[in-house]
Amino acid sequence: MKKDKRLVLALDETVPARALAIAEAVAPHVDAIKINWPLVLSAGPGVIDQISQFSDVVCDFKVADIPNTVRLIVERSVARGASAVIVHAFTGPDSLEAAVDAAGRAEIYAVTEMSHPGGRVFTAPHAEEMARLGLDAGVSGFIAPATRPDRIAAIRRIAGDLKILSPGVGAQGGSVADALAAGADYAIVGRAIYGAADPAAAAADFASQAASR
Amino acid sequence: MKKDKRLVLALDETVPARALAIAEAVAPHVDAIKINWPLVLSAGPGVIDQISQFSDVVCDFKVADIPNTVRLIVERSVARGASAVIVHAFTGPDSLEAAVDAAGRAEIYAVTEMSHPGGRVFTAPHAEEMARLGLDAGVSGFIAPATRPDRIAAIRRIAGDLKILSPGVGAQGGSVADALAAGADYAIVGRAIYGAADPAAAAADFASQAASR
Repeated sequence: MKKDKRLVLALDETVPARALAIAEAVAPHVDAIKINWPLVLSAGPGVIDQISQFSDVVCDFKVADIPNTVRLIVERSVARGASAVIVHAFTGPDSLEAAVDAAGRAEIYAVTEMSHPGGRVFTAPHAEEMARLGLDAGVSGFIAPATRPDRIAAIRRIAGDLKILSPGVGAQGGSVADALAAGADYAIVGRAIYGAADPAAAAADFASQAASR
Repeated sequence: MKKDKRLVLALDETVPARALAIAEAVAPHVDAIKINWPLVLSAGPGVIDQISQFSDVVCDFKVADIPNTVRLIVERSVARGASAVIVHAFTGPDSLEAAVDAAGRAEIYAVTEMSHPGGRVFTAPHAEEMARLGLDAGVSGFIAPATRPDRIAAIRRIAGDLKILSPGVGAQGGSVADALAAGADYAIVGRAIYGAADPAAAAADFASQAASR
């Protein structure tokens, strides 16, 4: 995945035609477009192939299964054109290693904690431990919440040279500047881009915020 | 989901035509057919609609996301004909509640622990806590490994009248008799049915093992 704009679109629009139109318009302003299962359930898995024609695609599938199933999900996503797949780390070393192995030259990013209220119950207390598991398994990087720059900094201390993607910029309250300053490589912006009247202009604006850092 | 055969097929075959043929042949011998993301990535989400024409479908999507994404995944799965969706509990109360709410009259089953080696690192030590979270959120039941009947019994003590589905029967070493004796409502069998020369006959055999209990 290139690191030029330091910006990733979280394409959480689920109307297929609208999602594709936004993806194509925004692609020049971001390094990658992140999609999730709801879009696959509405548009079909071919949406990965389609978006990968004009952008790197991050499959935010939060894979959390036994090693063989993890392997199948990652293999099929990469075969369809995904540049990266997001997996959970709490499933343990063998599931993580299966993901890394199945990805080949594509990247695996591990979730170390989740920022919604329920995520603080179990995931947040174990975040550093999850990051170490990911490091040992050979992942390319981690997901850490832009809404909590202190958590990005904590993961950065463990992650070394690995990449950090930070969701939660824009509508959820995180800022590009704070996320990058805390150690993120990419800010992930969703609704503030795909829900804007002019998504391309909104993406260009976030990209300029990232560039000015 | 009916409870007649006390048997669920884990349809982990990912060649679409073969998966559908097996599903149709096995349907009369099981209460439901469980599918996972690899089949959706190969066959498309319409496979849920197709299988639901002749069987209850359990979407084993191990959903592990923020509440809004959980809601979208469950809603779309149920709209396509799923009778139940499997979610992780470790994402906390709000994600679980979103799943239950989005399911409407369909069922939500929560994973309390995973039986692969990596699952023992984080998931197993928290299984009872996960079951209590699920109970509070109003799930219909839990997933507990047939390979460890003691764990089924432990979850049964918390689950009260809720249902327990137990994967791992057959090729992974669990038995129908042990799983049901320990408190499971359904034994889930995968490869020993879908990989058999005659999947319908294999399913009938497992169903008779369940009936003789």
